[in-house]
Amino acid sequence: MLKEITGGVCAAAGFKANAAFCGVKGKGPEKPDVALILSEQECAAAAVYTLNRVKAAPLYVTMEHLENGSAWGVVVNSGCANACCPRSHESAQAMCEAAAAATGREPKDFAVASTGVIGQALNIGVIEKGLPGIAAGLSESGSGLAAEAIMTTDRSKKEIALSLELGGKEVRLGAIAKGSSMIHPNMGTMLCFITTDCAITPQMLEEALREVTARTFNRVVVDGDSSSNDMCVALANGMAGNPLIEWKDEDFQKFKQALEEVCTHMARAIAADGTGSTKLITCRVRSARSEEWAERLARSVVSSDLIKASMFACDPHWGRVMIAMGCSKAPFRPEHVDIYFRSEAGEVLACVRGEAAPLDMDKAREILAQKEVVIDVDLHEGEEEAVCWGCDLTAEYVQINGNYRK
Amino acid sequence: MLKEITGGVCAAAGFKANAAFCGVKGKGPEKPDVALILSEQECAAAAVYTLNRVKAAPLYVTMEHLENGSAWGVVVNSGCANACCPRSHESAQAMCEAAAAATGREPKDFAVASTGVIGQALNIGVIEKGLPGIAAGLSESGSGLAAEAIMTTDRSKKEIALSLELGGKEVRLGAIAKGSSMIHPNMGTMLCFITTDCAITPQMLEEALREVTARTFNRVVVDGDSSSNDMCVALANGMAGNPLIEWKDEDFQKFKQALEEVCTHMARAIAADGTGSTKLITCRVRSARSEEWAERLARSVVSSDLIKASMFACDPHWGRVMIAMGCSKAPFRPEHVDIYFRSEAGEVLACVRGEAAPLDMDKAREILAQKEVVIDVDLHEGEEEAVCWGCDLTAEYVQINGNYRK
Repeated sequence: MLKEITGGVCAAAGFKANAAFCGVKGKGPEKPDVALILSEQECAAAAVYTLNRVKAAPLYVTMEHLENGSAWGVVVNSGCANACCPRSHESAQAMCEAAAAATGREPKDFAVASTGVIGQALNIGVIEKGLPGIAAGLSESGSGLAAEAIMTTDRSKKEIALSLELGGKEVRLGAIAKGSSMIHPNMGTMLCFITTDCAITPQMLEEALREVTARTFNRVVVDGDSSSNDMCVALANGMAGNPLIEWKDEDFQKFKQALEEVCTHMARAIAADGTGSTKLITCRVRSARSEEWAERLARSVVSSDLIKASMFACDPHWGRVMIAMGCSKAPFRPEHVDIYFRSEAGEVLACVRGEAAPLDMDKAREILAQKEVVIDVDLHEGEEEAVCWGCDLTAEYVQINGNYRK
Repeated sequence: MLKEITGGVCAAAGFKANAAFCGVKGKGPEKPDVALILSEQECAAAAVYTLNRVKAAPLYVTMEHLENGSAWGVVVNSGCANACCPRSHESAQAMCEAAAAATGREPKDFAVASTGVIGQALNIGVIEKGLPGIAAGLSESGSGLAAEAIMTTDRSKKEIALSLELGGKEVRLGAIAKGSSMIHPNMGTMLCFITTDCAITPQMLEEALREVTARTFNRVVVDGDSSSNDMCVALANGMAGNPLIEWKDEDFQKFKQALEEVCTHMARAIAADGTGSTKLITCRVRSARSEEWAERLARSVVSSDLIKASMFACDPHWGRVMIAMGCSKAPFRPEHVDIYFRSEAGEVLACVRGEAAPLDMDKAREILAQKEVVIDVDLHEGEEEAVCWGCDLTAEYVQINGNYRK
């Protein structure tokens, strides 16, 4: 039984966090821009990274530090991506050194991440200056500040925690995430930091993270770009005292299910917070011959700018759904397809067996005017299905992304 | 020597065109919505079609009619795509029958095309009623009307004609095209009708059209969606009297060069007319190891919504260019890359060997404020290059595509 609890990345036993404004961007507003997460015991550590050929230096440094499957914490800044800029590798290393010095640990004990503008040198000085104070203030109530510190164009703070029982012990998982532009489903498509007190080997943690990422973060689309800085890091310190998960046993499945719940929550939150968006679009493709094809079709639908513009305008334009699926290169029979639009306000069937269904337009518009809209496609071909998440496209997307560096 | 001439699809000897308002959409404004193009002699005919799995009925009918490599003309309507709707195949056939009856030819002598809203049944009655009048009015000055008739969300009429000399004879080529949304480079990405009086076999015409399409229409991106109705048809009636082109000889190369000029013009016109756009974006990737990789990189750049938003805002955000190239899956070394922005107003080097170059921001903004902007990427890796075309992304795109059916 999964239970939602409070505390974010500090919900699990032994984890503390803190963040502060250091001035990475060199100017206000004074929102926290550097965060630290620390475990009081060594953690099994696993991560997934962007597949973009252009990877920011912090990713390479983190890969190196996590190679042995262990870590103690995470240091992260917003306001600068530390990518395609001078001394990026040195700066990423210096962040770990400063975090280590401030906490009495080693640089290799830290995962490091940066998010923000690409191509500008990281102002490492202000981070080095700020970290001792941030470390001194580490607390079990610091998750919210850390979640705030990693936001860039995000409008909402992304934080969650769950508890479950494994072998008679309460195990807790928590996470913070950021992401609203450059979101695409080829990797852990944003920053997400997950902490848990579950006792699990690094191999099993990585396995669970990979499987879950494929079905959650890799199914979110905001704009088809994936950044140089995307990563998702999971730290497990074992302090819950549950029997160590070493195999794909029942406990592993339970833990993975909880992890999927956490990541699904974050994936949906990121889609809903898509830059300038007004609503979360979920596309479910069902009765498919394979999950992979269903996923390709669903992804093509939530990726289509034309559909996204229709969703913004509350237009049940099912023809564009057909066209987007046709572009996906996944096989399907257009003449078999049913398309529904659904939300809190009800459901309409817009397309039956590839052709227009008689449609109550007022009802359809009301359905599409809600904050969460589901495009439900029935292929009538098989037993498999997949769900992808995205958002609508608005004038604000253009405005916000046009003025991002101003 | 290529020379630009007037007359569009009627520039070549023996071609006439006409169009009129028939009321396909059932309501005004009274812009021409049905067009006819006819040759006075039989033509070698070739076509390329959308690769979308959802193909509109007119494409299947045209494929059948052009199977023998010959045709006499084209009948086309805007206002309805005749796709994913009842009786679409019958309607497409009925259009050819009506065109044949009005001109004294056979239904199989016509290519047929439709463009407009998907999912609504074609009002074939008004087209059948209108075609006799349109046929009666066929003239050598009808190209402009025909170009107007195929426009949907297009803001500008797309028409061109060229002449060249082959074997001592003047050969003329002309074309009309439409396209501003659902533009993507997987096929003849819009409607384009090309007429020529060149004497060329159907096989050589098809060969030339395929080669040219790959380097022109297949390199245009507006929004990543390709429609169910895209096609490009070329008709060659041989009336110029040049020696028949039967082989890939020098005359073939000259003809192909002229055809590429015509299609490049149309590809650029379609990109520049991208729904809601304010400028044409050309991305040239040079010094690549292969043309294919250069094309993939350039295509990824002009496809990126983030770059398109930056271009609208006149922000020389070269970091997004790097990221978009990184997403393309084509290999390149980020640390070798130079990125220039160029237009009538001058040139700036924004990125040198993967890092920010000192940049005069006022100058850069002035360059990006022009109607045609070039993003010029030097990979410093080889001898090959490719060019792709796109446009910026504006609030108007969202507004126009959201309200398309209202």
